[in-house]
Amino acid sequence: MTGPLVLEKQGSFFVGGRNVTSDTLSTLPAYAPSGTITVEQMYVRYQVPVAAGRPPVTLIHGCCLTGKTWETTPDGRMGWDEYFVRRGHPTYVVDQVSRGRSSADPSLVNSVKLGKTPVDKTPPIFAAGQEAAWAIFRFGTEYPKVHDGMRFPLAAKDEFYKQMVVDWIATMPTPNPTVKALSELSKKLDGTVLISHSQSGIYPFQTAALDTTGIAGIVSIEPGTCPAATGDLKPYMSIPIMVLWGDYVETSSRWAPRLKACREFAEALTKAGGRIDHVVLPDLGIKGNSHMLMQDDNSLEIADRLVAWIEKNVKAKKN
Amino acid sequence: MTGPLVLEKQGSFFVGGRNVTSDTLSTLPAYAPSGTITVEQMYVRYQVPVAAGRPPVTLIHGCCLTGKTWETTPDGRMGWDEYFVRRGHPTYVVDQVSRGRSSADPSLVNSVKLGKTPVDKTPPIFAAGQEAAWAIFRFGTEYPKVHDGMRFPLAAKDEFYKQMVVDWIATMPTPNPTVKALSELSKKLDGTVLISHSQSGIYPFQTAALDTTGIAGIVSIEPGTCPAATGDLKPYMSIPIMVLWGDYVETSSRWAPRLKACREFAEALTKAGGRIDHVVLPDLGIKGNSHMLMQDDNSLEIADRLVAWIEKNVKAKKN
Repeated sequence: MTGPLVLEKQGSFFVGGRNVTSDTLSTLPAYAPSGTITVEQMYVRYQVPVAAGRPPVTLIHGCCLTGKTWETTPDGRMGWDEYFVRRGHPTYVVDQVSRGRSSADPSLVNSVKLGKTPVDKTPPIFAAGQEAAWAIFRFGTEYPKVHDGMRFPLAAKDEFYKQMVVDWIATMPTPNPTVKALSELSKKLDGTVLISHSQSGIYPFQTAALDTTGIAGIVSIEPGTCPAATGDLKPYMSIPIMVLWGDYVETSSRWAPRLKACREFAEALTKAGGRIDHVVLPDLGIKGNSHMLMQDDNSLEIADRLVAWIEKNVKAKKN
Repeated sequence: MTGPLVLEKQGSFFVGGRNVTSDTLSTLPAYAPSGTITVEQMYVRYQVPVAAGRPPVTLIHGCCLTGKTWETTPDGRMGWDEYFVRRGHPTYVVDQVSRGRSSADPSLVNSVKLGKTPVDKTPPIFAAGQEAAWAIFRFGTEYPKVHDGMRFPLAAKDEFYKQMVVDWIATMPTPNPTVKALSELSKKLDGTVLISHSQSGIYPFQTAALDTTGIAGIVSIEPGTCPAATGDLKPYMSIPIMVLWGDYVETSSRWAPRLKACREFAEALTKAGGRIDHVVLPDLGIKGNSHMLMQDDNSLEIADRLVAWIEKNVKAKKN
């Protein structure tokens, strides 16, 4: 796991996207106001190890972040993007639609600037502040308190904060176009495990509800939302699923209700005959994990658990 | 060049960045309006081949684009990001400050939305329309005409358009913080060739004017601006420099004056005793290159020229 990394291939591409025309693309003399742009495409970067053999995984970041989430940790350790490759998985890392390298549409902002749209219709783009993010990422109950036993590398928190980006998600239609793009990607990969995090937690489920084709498994890490326990469970019956939680969840007013709802979903799905593992790490004696499991000091041990779970539950297609 | 890719290491990190506080980070109930965010950091992804031996190169994209510029071409061929690695160069790909994975600051947009800032102060963010971009990227004289012998893979133009992102550059202070970040990166790498493109063309020169430490060479591909021929040439005297142009430049009202100004700079620098190669590919019999040289069908031949130029002109540090 520490020698040279040997890749069969690597690259990047987009899935999804549609063209829109606008007459407020720009208010600058150097750039034409009118024209066509492509929006709602999703950036995907991938690496395929030699002698892969294991199913492709797709890593989907959460709120206010990009695919950087899965790369080198803030304190400089190997990210899951590389580790899954080293463990034999072709690995796909996306930037959600309208985040990072997946573009957003500035037309409405410019329309406001030009007086063509009322000010209160300015699109609600936002940046998550570090102080509020502190509790959301569960570094502590509130900024700047630190949970006992915290495994997130807080000495490198400044590098983590640099990962946070302006977020256009509230300007997106419902369902979020990332879902459709993930469906397209799953079909293209012909069997991938969708690994989501936090705000993207519901996306693999929504993708399955759209079409299960190409979805070999779902790992939802600390999802913001699980499907309703009382809803239509049929889309999830044929897919191996894991929902995974770190520590300090039960005492978080934000996260405890989400864990509860996911547990209810897992119980309902199990009862209906589905295959789902609802894992709360402290129940296994693994303590101290923040919301950013993939960057905590035991991140690779957690990745090992996912690799083992995939090995056990997800069949790789013969190539 | 087509077998498995063997990497000594890879990863990503940020350079630069400063904290700002704001009370208009968000207008959404779910995210606090007040707090601290980090801005002006620059995202850097890198790959180091085994037995590198050659100097690190830093690839800096142009207007309305991100580091994706240098990755897989729109028609699916290997990008310069991988090719330079295969030729023995540790390769660093950045997203300019306020573009892609390097965040921008939405505070002013929200301040307008909340009525705290006059509408005409809305930040001038923009997207370049495809029709106008057509002539800027020199696919033809005007949309949808195509230059004879065009080497850009226009059959895959839709994939190229997906690379274009919303651009916050006009909201940045002067000089653009990317320059300071490039300086920090150059020092960290202890000798890198800064390879810029188009809108970023002037940045390596501005970086050198700030501090030449760590700048082993400059390759400016179709720069939007060169340093003034009549200005202070001292910062550029000790650095090997190449300015590179594709085809159809002389007949472009946008690009011809820029080529002329760069040629004058090159002549002035040569006269003063500097080392600069001002290369216009058609003068060497290489025709049909668009502004997006690194994605044209002869992109790897052009990369080979840069590798050879670096080999000849830039000394690698002993490791």
